[in-house]
Amino acid sequence: MQPPQWIIEKKRDGQALGEEDIRQFILGYAAEEIPDYQMAALAMAIYLNGMSFEETRHLVQAMMDSGDVLDTSTLKRPVADKHSTGGIGDKVSLPLAPWVAACGLDVPMISGRGLGITGGTLDKLEAIPGYRTNLSEAEMIRVIQDCGCCIIGQTKSLAPADKKLYALRDVTATVPSIPLITGSIMCKKLAESLDVLVLDVKFGKGAFMKEEAQARELASTMAKVGNLMGVSVSALLTDMNEPLGHAAGNAVEVAESVECLHGRGPADLMEVTQALGAEMLVLAKVQPDLNAANAALDQALASGAALERYNRMVELQGGNPDPAALPKARMQAPLAATKAGFVTGVDANAIGRGVLLLGAGRQQSADPVNHAVGITELVKTGDSIQEGDPLLTVHADDADTLAAALPYLEQAFAIGEIAPAARSRVVERITG
Amino acid sequence: MQPPQWIIEKKRDGQALGEEDIRQFILGYAAEEIPDYQMAALAMAIYLNGMSFEETRHLVQAMMDSGDVLDTSTLKRPVADKHSTGGIGDKVSLPLAPWVAACGLDVPMISGRGLGITGGTLDKLEAIPGYRTNLSEAEMIRVIQDCGCCIIGQTKSLAPADKKLYALRDVTATVPSIPLITGSIMCKKLAESLDVLVLDVKFGKGAFMKEEAQARELASTMAKVGNLMGVSVSALLTDMNEPLGHAAGNAVEVAESVECLHGRGPADLMEVTQALGAEMLVLAKVQPDLNAANAALDQALASGAALERYNRMVELQGGNPDPAALPKARMQAPLAATKAGFVTGVDANAIGRGVLLLGAGRQQSADPVNHAVGITELVKTGDSIQEGDPLLTVHADDADTLAAALPYLEQAFAIGEIAPAARSRVVERITG
Repeated sequence: MQPPQWIIEKKRDGQALGEEDIRQFILGYAAEEIPDYQMAALAMAIYLNGMSFEETRHLVQAMMDSGDVLDTSTLKRPVADKHSTGGIGDKVSLPLAPWVAACGLDVPMISGRGLGITGGTLDKLEAIPGYRTNLSEAEMIRVIQDCGCCIIGQTKSLAPADKKLYALRDVTATVPSIPLITGSIMCKKLAESLDVLVLDVKFGKGAFMKEEAQARELASTMAKVGNLMGVSVSALLTDMNEPLGHAAGNAVEVAESVECLHGRGPADLMEVTQALGAEMLVLAKVQPDLNAANAALDQALASGAALERYNRMVELQGGNPDPAALPKARMQAPLAATKAGFVTGVDANAIGRGVLLLGAGRQQSADPVNHAVGITELVKTGDSIQEGDPLLTVHADDADTLAAALPYLEQAFAIGEIAPAARSRVVERITG
Repeated sequence: MQPPQWIIEKKRDGQALGEEDIRQFILGYAAEEIPDYQMAALAMAIYLNGMSFEETRHLVQAMMDSGDVLDTSTLKRPVADKHSTGGIGDKVSLPLAPWVAACGLDVPMISGRGLGITGGTLDKLEAIPGYRTNLSEAEMIRVIQDCGCCIIGQTKSLAPADKKLYALRDVTATVPSIPLITGSIMCKKLAESLDVLVLDVKFGKGAFMKEEAQARELASTMAKVGNLMGVSVSALLTDMNEPLGHAAGNAVEVAESVECLHGRGPADLMEVTQALGAEMLVLAKVQPDLNAANAALDQALASGAALERYNRMVELQGGNPDPAALPKARMQAPLAATKAGFVTGVDANAIGRGVLLLGAGRQQSADPVNHAVGITELVKTGDSIQEGDPLLTVHADDADTLAAALPYLEQAFAIGEIAPAARSRVVERITG
């Protein structure tokens, strides 16, 4: 065993780390033999000097090996999951998991909380009265055996190295690094013992990766690692310059997810969710091609099978699936347009900050989340509006948070005289 | 106050930190409000992205301001010190402090322990039976008032930020960085309230800076910072490819220092020590020029005044100044030359590793030091030798350490047929 600082030194000097270097460091860190300060120095050296694909692969493997893997041997259908790099109004996981479960997949989805201005699937689900996100792995498997899907939070035993490193990166300015993001996402997903993984890699104003090229590199790295490690992975590159759907917050996003499962969700949300679902069905070989997969998905919506799976999942996790049971904010106020024209852009970053300041997100990691607040009825790029028309409806619980949020919400809209060309949110499909 | 990670982020992205950024971080770190892991991430970002001169100056100032400054107001003569970046056989501080004290300077020298293969002044002094290095600042001032010099270890109150950061850098591979070295050395020296500081910046196989150009940049940065902060600073660039003098270890170096004060030390050690001393006397304006300063130094040796100051200092610090009282190793074994010729090189790194393995240095920071072991009678570059002549004498305490050290010691020597040109150890004088 070499001193940890010799490993840091190599990366500092731009050398590639060997598999054993990476294993020693990551497993030592998970075992609390290597302190946070040495991990922080290595993380910064990785941030600044990068990692080759080989190193990244060894990082994923070591982080995964720091804990157990989920026992999915009792699941009889293909085991699949989706991971998103996060955005504003991104509630895709909620309708997607039951939807593909209705089409033949088993989905053991382990999700996270909101980070910065990006919302978190767990926070949204916890807006549902009674919903438990802290199921054990055994409980999770039982829920999947019943309804085909289950969405819970990270457990203690899966990828503990990531749990520590994730928190450390947040406070050491080492978050937006392709090898470190790949390590964090892929170790958790691979620990789920998946057959199939589809990645939703977002770019733009409301995403972690501002540039499409960065997002493409991240997507490609993650897909390549996953495929090498025996999981069928592909990634969709999706546009997160504008929020997804009409709603952003927690309860309001759950309600929109249910609308989606009724087949009447916002067009962009339906497009992204169905594209990811079709990709999962084809990768898992339960459908021969995207056309057949889309037909199966359409059928599962029309028949109510997808909604039924959702209702069952929520009930099995202790929650009340009726949208009428969701918490409501004390005030609902429309934000009026100050001029007429076409919406040429809705800045996801500004909407994200506004929604966070309403209380739907956290300013510090220990802050509680207000599940009731957020925005709904958000106009979309291309919409034609008159002066005085509502651009969105704010759901706030008090005047202070409303006053803090409004300046951000107001500045989110670009209104022009010419209708912008319609554009797909799904920009590219990337395989390893 | 901004979150510390925002400051790390700036340096990570190659931006210059402002004075307030640096103060907030360093003072927060010293006050234990900023944890080691954030300091480690920042140190690595500084290592890799560097710091401008302005940033380095603010770093020195903030580190100095993390603690008290020494009260030298009761000292009536110019207050001067020397700092070396460290090398093999570098015992210069021991003869230099009393020598310049005999020529009109007051020297409050705060020294360190050995780091890696480079020896430490404190470890050497502690070879002297009874010598106390842990005097309080008030006791130190009293010793200087009596004999003009005092050499102790770092106290709790001076530059506490450095004490923490120094230990952290050692284990996070962030040591050889010009801004961080400058910060560490200069904050401590400026906290001594000096009028004059001379730096011995070493380069070569046995030094921290392997390249002369690096050492020159470090010397220039440190001198410039010191001069801007009101201390007269200059630096000598000295060659540390070969050990200094004939002895390396602890007690053996004390004995050689006493020889030096008798005027009969090795030529290279005498050269470097006197050059640094003359520089100090001229900078402090107690002598008008180097010729006059050298004459004063010669006189202080010839009269015995320098030796007298040394003996008095050792006694006042509780030690026995008689070299006969120094501890002796159990075995003394010559290492014979395997061929005749001229010594064309003595690798300071190999000698340093050998001496460390004999037990004179530390493999880990908590290891004890064996004061008795080391080497003496080391041949010098240019010496003519016959086959079988001793290249050095090893002082060892047991067969195991001797066996571990010998391979390193043996490979230190280059023997050729042509006598190399004589070369001064002092290569250049650098001012801010």
